[in-house]
Amino acid sequence: MKKDTGRYAARGVSAGKEEVHSAVDKLDRGLFPGAFCKITEDYLTGSKTRCNVIHSDGSGTKSIIGYLHFKETGDASVFRGISQDSIVMNIDDLICIGAVERILLSNTVNRNAKNFTGAALAELIGGSEDFLAKLRKLGVKIYSGGGETADVGDLTGAVVVDSCAVAVMKRDSVISGDKIKPGLVIVGLSSSGKASYEDAENSGIGSNGLTSARHDMLSPYYREKYPETYDSNTDKNLVYCGPHKMEDKLEGSDLTVGQALLSPTRTYAPIVMKIMKKHPGLIRGLVHCSGGGQTKCVRFGKGVHFIKDNLMPVPPIFKAIQKASGTSDSEMFEVYNMGHRMEVYCTKADAKKVIEISKGFGVDAQVVGRIEKSKRKDGRNHVTVVCGKKKLEYGPRA
Amino acid sequence: MKKDTGRYAARGVSAGKEEVHSAVDKLDRGLFPGAFCKITEDYLTGSKTRCNVIHSDGSGTKSIIGYLHFKETGDASVFRGISQDSIVMNIDDLICIGAVERILLSNTVNRNAKNFTGAALAELIGGSEDFLAKLRKLGVKIYSGGGETADVGDLTGAVVVDSCAVAVMKRDSVISGDKIKPGLVIVGLSSSGKASYEDAENSGIGSNGLTSARHDMLSPYYREKYPETYDSNTDKNLVYCGPHKMEDKLEGSDLTVGQALLSPTRTYAPIVMKIMKKHPGLIRGLVHCSGGGQTKCVRFGKGVHFIKDNLMPVPPIFKAIQKASGTSDSEMFEVYNMGHRMEVYCTKADAKKVIEISKGFGVDAQVVGRIEKSKRKDGRNHVTVVCGKKKLEYGPRA
Repeated sequence: MKKDTGRYAARGVSAGKEEVHSAVDKLDRGLFPGAFCKITEDYLTGSKTRCNVIHSDGSGTKSIIGYLHFKETGDASVFRGISQDSIVMNIDDLICIGAVERILLSNTVNRNAKNFTGAALAELIGGSEDFLAKLRKLGVKIYSGGGETADVGDLTGAVVVDSCAVAVMKRDSVISGDKIKPGLVIVGLSSSGKASYEDAENSGIGSNGLTSARHDMLSPYYREKYPETYDSNTDKNLVYCGPHKMEDKLEGSDLTVGQALLSPTRTYAPIVMKIMKKHPGLIRGLVHCSGGGQTKCVRFGKGVHFIKDNLMPVPPIFKAIQKASGTSDSEMFEVYNMGHRMEVYCTKADAKKVIEISKGFGVDAQVVGRIEKSKRKDGRNHVTVVCGKKKLEYGPRA
Repeated sequence: MKKDTGRYAARGVSAGKEEVHSAVDKLDRGLFPGAFCKITEDYLTGSKTRCNVIHSDGSGTKSIIGYLHFKETGDASVFRGISQDSIVMNIDDLICIGAVERILLSNTVNRNAKNFTGAALAELIGGSEDFLAKLRKLGVKIYSGGGETADVGDLTGAVVVDSCAVAVMKRDSVISGDKIKPGLVIVGLSSSGKASYEDAENSGIGSNGLTSARHDMLSPYYREKYPETYDSNTDKNLVYCGPHKMEDKLEGSDLTVGQALLSPTRTYAPIVMKIMKKHPGLIRGLVHCSGGGQTKCVRFGKGVHFIKDNLMPVPPIFKAIQKASGTSDSEMFEVYNMGHRMEVYCTKADAKKVIEISKGFGVDAQVVGRIEKSKRKDGRNHVTVVCGKKKLEYGPRA
């Protein structure tokens, strides 16, 4: 796969996380090395039939867009969505291993207390509690066990929001990744539109690629006004170098640019839970298209070729980002989900069941591709994404 | 208790965390509201006799001192100590509720990838694994379940290191705080010196108060050279306004100023575990003197007056900070541990057993005070710290 030579890397972000993987790859991979999350033996209670997962992730730089909205409008409630982003980035990874109940969660907020006020903090914490309550109503048994707020104004000009989610699972209910094999189809669940359990139209943005999206979309107005929201070492031509104010209409959408960039990350947990419940064994694999976008899948399965040749229409937010930035198709699909953020791997015959359940929640779904045997000489995984008349090829990760 | 009007607050840090408590206080306090950590029912496995704790904390701005050392010397191994800081800030809170085994841990690193390199990341992650292995050798059953590294250069100029620790406990083994009552004595376990399980002399600094300590101790040399390590909104007279370079000798110590500020936070887990094992029931309460320093205890017990009138000698690092900053005695004891970072509450008769065990690990210990009935009209908790001929009085927290 190509090195991070694009605009993304110039802003100090590695889509492929090569450095991180090289630091981590020598560590123990756990009980199910092919699974979406690291799964350990049951350290927590010592059972031989159970296993543990502890998962950490956060809203990343999406919090900065919330911060810009807050500073411009005084509306602190925007941070309720940032809570959701941080939580869903954990939950939707956990569902990829089949963990959808008995989840214990903690939040960590690292803030600049002068800029990110007590009122903002209250919305963030209240928003988290409310979103967890909503998830429980939807059948996801997730509970808050507390959290930590640190005043670290020398470390951040705004706010860093992270969560950690833990589950104790039965080993025999783990989705381990070893069933991702040639012959299966890939059902994509749309990242945009409005799910029956969402309060507003979702742009589909999720919580990945927001560093690039923010700088490429938003105007130098924000650069001048909020120097605390970017790395002063980044080439100024790459900082808030876009055409838009937050309140601009997003082309092809009813949302503003700010609303689209701030759309809270959709969780697919209710849909996946229903598939599991109604059709046990149907799901052969799940991939959350988070960091790495449509190439995320390349780490899962063995000796396979992921062919995505029937992708959903690209939502307006991604079109607007590409138009504003001139980013190549190849990089766009590597950074953003571009239309679906969850993939269900199943037999061709089962695909319609998945699609029906997803549409029942108002979330569009379709067969976006299939798995074949790897065509590489070394037999390693690779991905082909068909984008219009172009075929984009991605090799295995380092 | 006085408002945060001191130098600490001027740098955007709240020792008493009033804003945080006001945002959090309406939340459910869990099964044991008087315990040191929030304890929930056993969401993870559904047992009626067990309970859960999920705890998040990190190294705070101590990572910046590691960063300065790294940038000045090229020595990335300094981040091994920062890993330890982040882990111990969790473990030593957990031991205060009696959780010393079956701990599952995850680390979250938010970094500026341009400034905090892959080599530094490798040391941080390797250091964490090695420290956990060391703890296991000491009998603390703690395991890593993974972690997350996010490249968020727009959110931080250096690196933010956090951990999350989880345990499933038996409810009847929880140290719940309800035994903190008049008549008990307070045994302080020294934060400085060299424990038998430590590799080097410890200054006693821990991981609290490091924003102030760094600015008050270190010279404007660092302000000029590392603008990415402080909040540009802070009054420049409070930024790196101290007399020292990192390599200066610390007065009254064999350590340099940099070594003293970077001393990895001591864990008291081996000592507390041995007390619990050898003398079940002896421990009536434990307080980790972290944020809030010697006033941290005021949140625990009911209607009590903590009298600390026989404190240990103040270690050189705290004397140097006070000398450099001119901070009042009252604020010093509220921000720093000033000599002991762990308090064991027990009967007067049992104190010598605690002291003997602690000294057996090379950690000095003594009866530093006692508990009496609250002398306030409203009956709420308060603290008296005797410092030389001064009596410092601290009221209850908001």
